Amino acid sequence: MGASCDIAIVGATGLVGEAVVELLEERRFPLGNLHLFASERSAGTRVEFRGGYVTVRELDEFDFSTVQLAIFAAGPEVAEAYAPRAADAGCVAIDTSGRFRDAPGVPLVVAAVNPEAIEDFRETRILATPGAAATQLLTALQPLRAGVGIERVQVTTLLPVSAQGRNGIEELASQTAALLNGQPIESRVFTRQIAFNVLPDIAGLGDYGYTQLEMQLVHELRRVWGEPDLPIHASIAWFPGFYGCLQDVRIESPRSLSADAARRLLEAAPGLRVLDDESGEVPNPVEAAGQGTVYVGRIRSDLAETGGLALWTAADNIRQGVAENAVRIAELFVKGYL
Amino acid sequence: MGASCDIAIVGATGLVGEAVVELLEERRFPLGNLHLFASERSAGTRVEFRGGYVTVRELDEFDFSTVQLAIFAAGPEVAEAYAPRAADAGCVAIDTSGRFRDAPGVPLVVAAVNPEAIEDFRETRILATPGAAATQLLTALQPLRAGVGIERVQVTTLLPVSAQGRNGIEELASQTAALLNGQPIESRVFTRQIAFNVLPDIAGLGDYGYTQLEMQLVHELRRVWGEPDLPIHASIAWFPGFYGCLQDVRIESPRSLSADAARRLLEAAPGLRVLDDESGEVPNPVEAAGQGTVYVGRIRSDLAETGGLALWTAADNIRQGVAENAVRIAELFVKGYL
Repeated sequence: MGASCDIAIVGATGLVGEAVVELLEERRFPLGNLHLFASERSAGTRVEFRGGYVTVRELDEFDFSTVQLAIFAAGPEVAEAYAPRAADAGCVAIDTSGRFRDAPGVPLVVAAVNPEAIEDFRETRILATPGAAATQLLTALQPLRAGVGIERVQVTTLLPVSAQGRNGIEELASQTAALLNGQPIESRVFTRQIAFNVLPDIAGLGDYGYTQLEMQLVHELRRVWGEPDLPIHASIAWFPGFYGCLQDVRIESPRSLSADAARRLLEAAPGLRVLDDESGEVPNPVEAAGQGTVYVGRIRSDLAETGGLALWTAADNIRQGVAENAVRIAELFVKGYL
Repeated sequence: MGASCDIAIVGATGLVGEAVVELLEERRFPLGNLHLFASERSAGTRVEFRGGYVTVRELDEFDFSTVQLAIFAAGPEVAEAYAPRAADAGCVAIDTSGRFRDAPGVPLVVAAVNPEAIEDFRETRILATPGAAATQLLTALQPLRAGVGIERVQVTTLLPVSAQGRNGIEELASQTAALLNGQPIESRVFTRQIAFNVLPDIAGLGDYGYTQLEMQLVHELRRVWGEPDLPIHASIAWFPGFYGCLQDVRIESPRSLSADAARRLLEAAPGLRVLDDESGEVPNPVEAAGQGTVYVGRIRSDLAETGGLALWTAADNIRQGVAENAVRIAELFVKGYL
C-alpha cells in the first residue's frame, strides 16, 4: 500500500472530527498533508497529531483541489455548502452529517457491510455514511445476515446526548448538576428534562407516527442492504448518558437460528466483541464508550417468535458509529481509487 | 359503602409503604384503625395521616386478628415470615413483595384487569400483586385486549433505580455526584456503573438467556390474563433515573387494529392518559413520577408487522406500579368480602 493521500477534515474540533483525527493517527492512515477546518470560533486552535501540531483554519477560501479526500464532520448546512464544491474541485467528499444520505447518486456506505458501494462515487464524488444507530446495527447484524439471512428487524435504540453534539453533553451535565443541587433546569437541546429521564424522541414527528430519526434508521438499513421493502420497526429514545448507544434487537431469519449458532457467527466477525453472559458481561454504553468495537451480548431466542433471535448491542456512537466508518471508507479509497 | 376496615401496613417507611399510606388518605379509604410497621431501625417514626400522626412500630408481637387486611410492602423475607401468620389469624394479606407471586393458591391480581381473581383468596388468604412493569403493561393493554384481543406482546422495559428501593436511589445519586466531581464510584446495588449508563439486567440470569426479571414479567402477564402459552418477549434494562418506568411496546391482534382505533379504545379507559403527539406530548418517566396514571403515547402501526401496533407507556413504578394496585385490591375487599 504505497499510496498516500492528502485529507481535509471539515469540523475538526467537533466530537466526530476529533475522533476522526485520532483514528487517522491510531490506524496509521497513509497520510500526506492533513488540513483541519472549523468555524470561526475554533479557528486558530492547534490539534496534536503524530507528535506535532496542526492549526485549525477557517474553510472559506480553501482550494479543495489540493486534497484527494475531504471528510465532512460538521453540520448538514456546512456539508451542503462545501461538499459539492469539494467534489467540483476533483476531491472525493465523505459526508457524515446526514445532508447527502438521501441524495441521488450518493452511495450510502458502511465499510464493514457494503464496501462495494463506494464504486458508485463517480457520479457525484460524494459518499454518505449512515447515522450512528444504523452503523452500529448494520455492523452487529452483518455476520447473521451473511450467514443465514434476515427477513425482519425490530430495534429499540437508546441514544446518548452526544448524538446531539457538545450542546447535548452540556445540557445533560448542567441539568444533572442543577437537579442534584435543587436548582431549576433549562431545556434547549431536548424538548424537556433529559437528566434522570428517558425521552422517546418527539421532535421531528413525521409520517405514520414515527419520528424522522426512526424513519431515517429504517431507510438507512434498507438502503445499505439494498432491500427497499424489508420490514423494519425502529423505536428511538434519548437516555441520560454522555457516550455510547444501546440497542435491544430482535430479528427473524428465513432459517431457524439458535442462540448458539448466532453466537458462533458473531464471534467469528471482525469489529465485534461477543460478551459472555455467564461471567456477568453485558453490553452497556459506558463500557463501549471510547472503543471502536460493537459489543454484542444477551444472545437468546425470542420467546415471542418462532425462530426469532434477540440480542443487545452497545457501541460508541461517535467513534464506532461515525468516525471509524468514515476513516475506513477513506482507507478503501486509498487502496482502490487514488 | 358503609363497611370500614382495619389495616396493617408492613414496611410502612419504605417507598411502597409510604405511597400506600398516602393513597389510603387521598382515596378516602374507608378505614378503621391503621397500624404501621417497619424494621427496628424505623420503629418510633411518626407518619402523618389525616391530620394526625401514626407511630410506626416493630412487627414482632402484633396480633393480626385485630385487623382485616394487611398490606405487605416490605421485602420478600418479611412477607415469607409474616404473611402466613396474618392469614392464619384470619386476616387477608396483600403481598407486593413478590414472595407469593408463584405460590399455589395465591391469586395474582391487578385490580383494573382481573378483579374477579380476588375471589380465590379463600384457600390461602394471601393475594399477590405483580411487579411494577407487569402492572403498568397490563393496565395499558387492558382496553386493547378487551376490544380486539392480543395474540403476541413484545416489550422493552426501562426501569428506574427506585425499583431497587432506597438503596438504588442512593447509589444513583452518589455515583452521579461523584462522577460530576471527578471522584471514583462504588457499585453495590447494580453490577456496574448505573449513573449515565443503561444496564440490560445481568444479575439473576436464568433460563434461555433471559433474566429472572424478564421471565417474571412474562409469567405475570400470562397468569393475570390466564393465557399460559401467550407468546411474550420481554427485555429489561435499568436506566439512570429515580422514578418512573418507560416501556416500548409492540402487540399483534387477531384482528387488524389501526392506530386511530387503538387510540379511541385507550382514550375511553380509566386510569390511562393518552398523550397527543401533535402537541409534543410524549410518555416519559419524569412526568409520570408521582402520578397514579399510565401515560400512553406514540401510538402507531408497527412497520415490521402486518396489523401490529406500537406504543410507548410511562408510569410511576412505585405509586402506579405497586401501591395503587394494592390499595385498589383492598378497596375491592371492603366492598365485597368484609
